[in-house]
Amino acid sequence: MQRICVDMDEVMADTLAEHLRRYNQAFDEDVTPDDLAGKGLWEVAPADRQAQLRAFLDAEDFFEDLDLMPGAQEVLKDLSTRFEIFIATQAMVVPNSLGSKYRWLQRHFAFIPPTHYVFCGTKSILRADYLIDDMPRNLQRFEGHGLLFTAPHNVTATGFTRVDNWQQVADFFAGVHS
Amino acid sequence: MQRICVDMDEVMADTLAEHLRRYNQAFDEDVTPDDLAGKGLWEVAPADRQAQLRAFLDAEDFFEDLDLMPGAQEVLKDLSTRFEIFIATQAMVVPNSLGSKYRWLQRHFAFIPPTHYVFCGTKSILRADYLIDDMPRNLQRFEGHGLLFTAPHNVTATGFTRVDNWQQVADFFAGVHS
Repeated sequence: MQRICVDMDEVMADTLAEHLRRYNQAFDEDVTPDDLAGKGLWEVAPADRQAQLRAFLDAEDFFEDLDLMPGAQEVLKDLSTRFEIFIATQAMVVPNSLGSKYRWLQRHFAFIPPTHYVFCGTKSILRADYLIDDMPRNLQRFEGHGLLFTAPHNVTATGFTRVDNWQQVADFFAGVHS
Repeated sequence: MQRICVDMDEVMADTLAEHLRRYNQAFDEDVTPDDLAGKGLWEVAPADRQAQLRAFLDAEDFFEDLDLMPGAQEVLKDLSTRFEIFIATQAMVVPNSLGSKYRWLQRHFAFIPPTHYVFCGTKSILRADYLIDDMPRNLQRFEGHGLLFTAPHNVTATGFTRVDNWQQVADFFAGVHS
């Protein structure tokens, strides 16, 4: 059975929406995903707001209630009948997120057992056939086949197999033997 | 550079000592590591103490102050100049341990960056050349070269390259190109 690793933030969970919500509320701004084509929120926020941008992520409750990306549950549930699914998230850069990420996965993806969660740093450590991730850097370090999941910050990245949404993930794996 | 994954419990940290300490204190017993040759504490404890055995591990502070295995720091520091070192621990079976394991690693192994921590379930997910682990099952699932780190529960296991302590780990890798 082939093995698929799936990133959490901006692939399974709408982390950007929560980050924008907190940012806009704190600074009385109205930044939208459309304003972030080709760049991260870090790049549009002024220098004196960078510490707060980071502090949002460090808040114990930030990762607790993130919205699901549309279709993620349904498509992963279907794929889990044909592939071995692992969740692979760079949780180590935000250690406060470890517990809340675990709980979020239990709540929304109960069909994936905790034995198949991987909280890691560099994704070069993953032994898998596929990795679905929004970060070009993660895909470059991965030794299997990478799929770039479209997010505002990566729309200008080239040289990757790109999927824009979970329906396109389903379509891609419909043509792959399991 | 070749890559070595290192398990935490009973390899870097003396988890068994803490488990025995809490068990003996709670039940007024005097179980020692010598009593556990070839078996786990689970196998010697009576059925009506199994829930408590598990509860010890779930305590928020269990993994906070574990003793170091002798030589682990010195040998890993030395190996880290010739090999890429990852910490790979089955933290997902005890989700309460996620934060305390992270802090313990920061405190005692500051020379290994958090990008190289892997909190996982099955160790078949690791892409590495070597894995040092006390659990035969983990080594069987790993696709690289496994080293069985001797612990009371595994003394009867056969068919593995065995290291009894950190000095033997150093000796083994002295003969391996990096």
